[in-house]
Amino acid sequence: MNFASDNIVGASPQVLDAIAAANTGALPSYGGDAITKRVEARFAEIFERDCAVFLVTTGTAANALAISALTPPYAACMTHEESHAIDDECGAPEFFGGGCKLVGVPGVGAKLSAEAIRTCIANEPGGVNHPPLRSLSLSQATECGMIHTLDEIRSIAETAHGHGMAVHMDGARFANALVSLGCTPAEMTWKAGVDCLSFGGTKNGCLMAEAVVFFDLQWAKDFIYRRKRAGQTVSKGRLISAQFDAYFAQDHWLYLARHANAMARALSDGLAALPGFRRAWPTQANEAFIILPGKVASALRSAGAMFHEWTDKSLPAGEAVADNEVLIRLVTSFQTTSEMIEAFLAIARSTSIQAK
Amino acid sequence: MNFASDNIVGASPQVLDAIAAANTGALPSYGGDAITKRVEARFAEIFERDCAVFLVTTGTAANALAISALTPPYAACMTHEESHAIDDECGAPEFFGGGCKLVGVPGVGAKLSAEAIRTCIANEPGGVNHPPLRSLSLSQATECGMIHTLDEIRSIAETAHGHGMAVHMDGARFANALVSLGCTPAEMTWKAGVDCLSFGGTKNGCLMAEAVVFFDLQWAKDFIYRRKRAGQTVSKGRLISAQFDAYFAQDHWLYLARHANAMARALSDGLAALPGFRRAWPTQANEAFIILPGKVASALRSAGAMFHEWTDKSLPAGEAVADNEVLIRLVTSFQTTSEMIEAFLAIARSTSIQAK
Amino acid sequence: MNFASDNIVGASPQVLDAIAAANTGALPSYGGDAITKRVEARFAEIFERDCAVFLVTTGTAANALAISALTPPYAACMTHEESHAIDDECGAPEFFGGGCKLVGVPGVGAKLSAEAIRTCIANEPGGVNHPPLRSLSLSQATECGMIHTLDEIRSIAETAHGHGMAVHMDGARFANALVSLGCTPAEMTWKAGVDCLSFGGTKNGCLMAEAVVFFDLQWAKDFIYRRKRAGQTVSKGRLISAQFDAYFAQDHWLYLARHANAMARALSDGLAALPGFRRAWPTQANEAFIILPGKVASALRSAGAMFHEWTDKSLPAGEAVADNEVLIRLVTSFQTTSEMIEAFLAIARSTSIQAK
Amino acid sequence: MNFASDNIVGASPQVLDAIAAANTGALPSYGGDAITKRVEARFAEIFERDCAVFLVTTGTAANALAISALTPPYAACMTHEESHAIDDECGAPEFFGGGCKLVGVPGVGAKLSAEAIRTCIANEPGGVNHPPLRSLSLSQATECGMIHTLDEIRSIAETAHGHGMAVHMDGARFANALVSLGCTPAEMTWKAGVDCLSFGGTKNGCLMAEAVVFFDLQWAKDFIYRRKRAGQTVSKGRLISAQFDAYFAQDHWLYLARHANAMARALSDGLAALPGFRRAWPTQANEAFIILPGKVASALRSAGAMFHEWTDKSLPAGEAVADNEVLIRLVTSFQTTSEMIEAFLAIARSTSIQAK
Repeated sequence: MNFASDNIVGASPQVLDAIAAANTGALPSYGGDAITKRVEARFAEIFERDCAVFLVTTGTAANALAISALTPPYAACMTHEESHAIDDECGAPEFFGGGCKLVGVPGVGAKLSAEAIRTCIANEPGGVNHPPLRSLSLSQATECGMIHTLDEIRSIAETAHGHGMAVHMDGARFANALVSLGCTPAEMTWKAGVDCLSFGGTKNGCLMAEAVVFFDLQWAKDFIYRRKRAGQTVSKGRLISAQFDAYFAQDHWLYLARHANAMARALSDGLAALPGFRRAWPTQANEAFIILPGKVASALRSAGAMFHEWTDKSLPAGEAVADNEVLIRLVTSFQTTSEMIEAFLAIARSTSIQAK
Repeated sequence: MNFASDNIVGASPQVLDAIAAANTGALPSYGGDAITKRVEARFAEIFERDCAVFLVTTGTAANALAISALTPPYAACMTHEESHAIDDECGAPEFFGGGCKLVGVPGVGAKLSAEAIRTCIANEPGGVNHPPLRSLSLSQATECGMIHTLDEIRSIAETAHGHGMAVHMDGARFANALVSLGCTPAEMTWKAGVDCLSFGGTKNGCLMAEAVVFFDLQWAKDFIYRRKRAGQTVSKGRLISAQFDAYFAQDHWLYLARHANAMARALSDGLAALPGFRRAWPTQANEAFIILPGKVASALRSAGAMFHEWTDKSLPAGEAVADNEVLIRLVTSFQTTSEMIEAFLAIARSTSIQAK
Repeated sequence: MNFASDNIVGASPQVLDAIAAANTGALPSYGGDAITKRVEARFAEIFERDCAVFLVTTGTAANALAISALTPPYAACMTHEESHAIDDECGAPEFFGGGCKLVGVPGVGAKLSAEAIRTCIANEPGGVNHPPLRSLSLSQATECGMIHTLDEIRSIAETAHGHGMAVHMDGARFANALVSLGCTPAEMTWKAGVDCLSFGGTKNGCLMAEAVVFFDLQWAKDFIYRRKRAGQTVSKGRLISAQFDAYFAQDHWLYLARHANAMARALSDGLAALPGFRRAWPTQANEAFIILPGKVASALRSAGAMFHEWTDKSLPAGEAVADNEVLIRLVTSFQTTSEMIEAFLAIARSTSIQAK
Repeated sequence: MNFASDNIVGASPQVLDAIAAANTGALPSYGGDAITKRVEARFAEIFERDCAVFLVTTGTAANALAISALTPPYAACMTHEESHAIDDECGAPEFFGGGCKLVGVPGVGAKLSAEAIRTCIANEPGGVNHPPLRSLSLSQATECGMIHTLDEIRSIAETAHGHGMAVHMDGARFANALVSLGCTPAEMTWKAGVDCLSFGGTKNGCLMAEAVVFFDLQWAKDFIYRRKRAGQTVSKGRLISAQFDAYFAQDHWLYLARHANAMARALSDGLAALPGFRRAWPTQANEAFIILPGKVASALRSAGAMFHEWTDKSLPAGEAVADNEVLIRLVTSFQTTSEMIEAFLAIARSTSIQAK
């Protein structure tokens, strides 16, 4: 009953097999191999347009490199005040960006909105004392497991572009968001105005496979140098490209994401039905955020369940975590089974009754 | 007959199997797993002392992170003028080091020497116009496939320490150097005065496994933050630790390195015996550097052999590459076979005779 | 009636004369001259202890250099969320600090407090995802013209030190704060726990004279290199040292500050007595922050008065700026005269009556 | 007899008077004042075209800011291996440039040449391991007191532009070079292909006045932010602009430079005529580089003369400093008098005879 994160499991069997299959023989290093080239072409197919693809090793590196390409060192990148970039990467965007600033804006469920962006811009004093806003980063899904609709992304991107900001999407859970919306990758990105995407594979069935994808190719200029000097140009590049190769084959990635999302929904629905339990935010991807009695949470932990407590900073207006309650995050993955869900729900149910 | 590099092959079967074996089950992420902990303990055993070990993804990241820990941003790191750090990492040390400088010194076969260090220091004008020298990075083996003896390392480290410089060793080919010297890992590092080591696994049988090892623990303070913000804290850390686990088991790493070195020696000896061929530098690890007639090199290429031409900058005094000659680098790996060597030598022999 | 800032005027006659007097003859450059050495010694006298003094050209450079010396690039500096460092220096601390983060905490009147610091620390999630807090910067006087008492500084510094943070004081208006408290420079700094001070002269009668002063000499190590590579090592250093020379002579600096403070108090008292006017924060140094009817503010502007509107972010609980009101900042300087104050008050009075 | 540098003297009387004259009254700060605007307009007149002018405090800041605007952080700037930027600024260009690299090329008298640039480019291995060359910085006059002719500048700039490099000129001694060539400022800069200029006033009669001038306005975009976050936006901007105001009035700057150059020539001619003395490089601006017997140099020092020994790295082919000789630099300034020259020559003459 480990719901601590979606990075606690290994790779899907298909992805693992692909690593093994790619292991034999001599191949050009540093991404010059045929598998990498095939994968780059696959990205173009999947996104229905020419795009520049750069494989990297971690999500933090993907975000920080992407933001550094969109944001001059003297400028600022706007993002949600709880985004991974601003709050969980130990200053990687500032480091890769040469000292650029991240400007946090509020929003329920860690979602950005055109309105919040406009308010932030209106409050900018202007003048030379503040770094100019040059980019925006939205997370899809968000840190609270929520999804921006296509309309919302469009409206965010339009507002950003209208103020001279390039648009980055942190897609660490891109697949989970995609199948949740039921749209195409193109629709969720460049067709809605996204210039650059951190495309995550690791949380959804790969062992370590991330990519920075540029739809607006002007931003991709010289990115190979940025990646190299960041120590992200992998010598035996096949390790990453082989994973993506299997990830995309026969829509494996969509299958994995659908499964994880379904598990999260089942868990969320089961818990929300219990007395004293409620959702902090709607469960839209592979994470359930639940407010529950503190005693029950402790009992679940005692019974071996693993999960993280979460911040209540972006709760909807009117919602609050009472003193005897806690807000927890439960993350499902491609490996989560109905049995795990059931086991967790069973304990929740019984301790919930006892706790009364 | 691909001798272009030792990163053109995949992982050894043992290493690959370990990745697969580590794939199942839920494990703490970000290096909190038992495999990582076991591997960290193995490093301590192998180096016969407490040391701080940080797994990372690439050799460039290992070097740049290590140098950034040893060198304040306003200071300089001395290294050979042809070292990988100064010449092949696209400015990664300067980037990770916040704009620190690398100062290159000359030396035959890309080797450093106490004398060259002293000369460089003596030529420093002093004063505030020059970044102070605070670290030194030597490569073992060097970019020219040579090995610093234990006496040489000791003398280099002593000189460096005497001038307030911390000592880093770039061990991208650590294992090849180690079995060449026939000493212990401790003897080649901290017992000789090395404070920090980039320990490479990728070139010697791993798919992607590097580590920064601090023997002087003061330098390791806060290094977890440096690694995180560099995008080098791998979420599914087992991917890297499992490789090292197998790498170290039953001296697998030493076996692989001995094989690669033996192959290089066989290749080097075979070639050096041919008329018009000679070694640019002695073959001490898994790379042979050969000066040969340009025509023969072309013929070898036409026959499908792959290798890189190399710079003659660090040739011994009196040695030179004539106009009709080229200097080439031939790298062997744990996968190189006697058959490959023989095939290459056969073509070299026959084209050599024709070329007369 | 220009109350826009204290940097709109030139230098005091004494300071100007000192520049002229220092102009003749050949002197060693880059701070090696006798005037600079004399001034450095004066700092030690004034602060009653050995200290390391580094003259620089701007307050932004002083703050950013000081913070970079106290804060490793992977770490964070805590400061008030409206401090000059976080809000008015276009990212200079992040730039000089190699990408370090600034963490803003709230507080009435832009003041820090031990409690706010403890709350911020308590909310830190810990772990490697957040840069560790390694320094704290408090402004004396604050951006809202308030003064931390000696007890408050002591308590802030103690709390900071207790959590491993070095303490920096932004003293752009150091003299105004000092004469307001009526204490000694030593009492307001190192005796209260301050490790490093940005000592400002420009706003209080110099043309351009700032200094970074280290009381804890360990932080001063290598600072000469930081200053040089920041382009802050002035070749004709006498330009700055001569100003400080005159600034300190016969307590000229204290005289200037007392005058500016008295002018601010007179202005503040005069305005606060008017109907519909009130102080946003107490007037403790050389800045008056007044909430007044918007119409009156407009009338004052029409009459030629110059001042800035200010943010209401750090108002005391219960205080607010109504829709028909504005919050303005009025800054006095050593050159402000009673006549200017009277002229401003006269218009305020008459427009205030008309506005009714 | 202080010939140590041209920054050992103060300002010319005219420049000093201008500082005093500008001191009175309230003026907008941060460069918004009328003097600064007038000076910016003067630059446009002097350079016969629209240009973007940014006043800064030091030559190091001017160079480092300019190079950072022309060179992405992952790229390299080519310059002479003895240029001030690479050798005397403690890594400022690397710091301001976010870790960019400086690539040094050789050349007699610290001059660049199209040929040296082409050789350097031809030796670049290409590929992602080396930062791409994106800018070039030439010094006019050079560190050895030499002047690039207009043809040479044109040819250097053409070669640089042809390889995608923007062209920066370090004009710390711009005026001395200009009057030496007898051309217009436009001819020596943008008409010859220079994109950006560090325009120095400090060494030629100002106390502290430097400017970054962009002729290609695309590079000036956002430069105000770079300057601000570098701590180079002076609050009482009149201090610098007033100096330039007087500097340009009635060709004062050209007068000062002509004087300094004439003094250097007189000194150089007088010394070169002495037995055992010879010029290391031709005296083309305000610096004489003389090779002389070591004993004579010591005697001069004993007699109170001040000067620096210089490196022989860029001597013309065939020239060398013998064991009993030294190479010294003698710098003249606007304040140097014929009496000082005569006094120096007299001692040189007499000690020279004694030394035989």
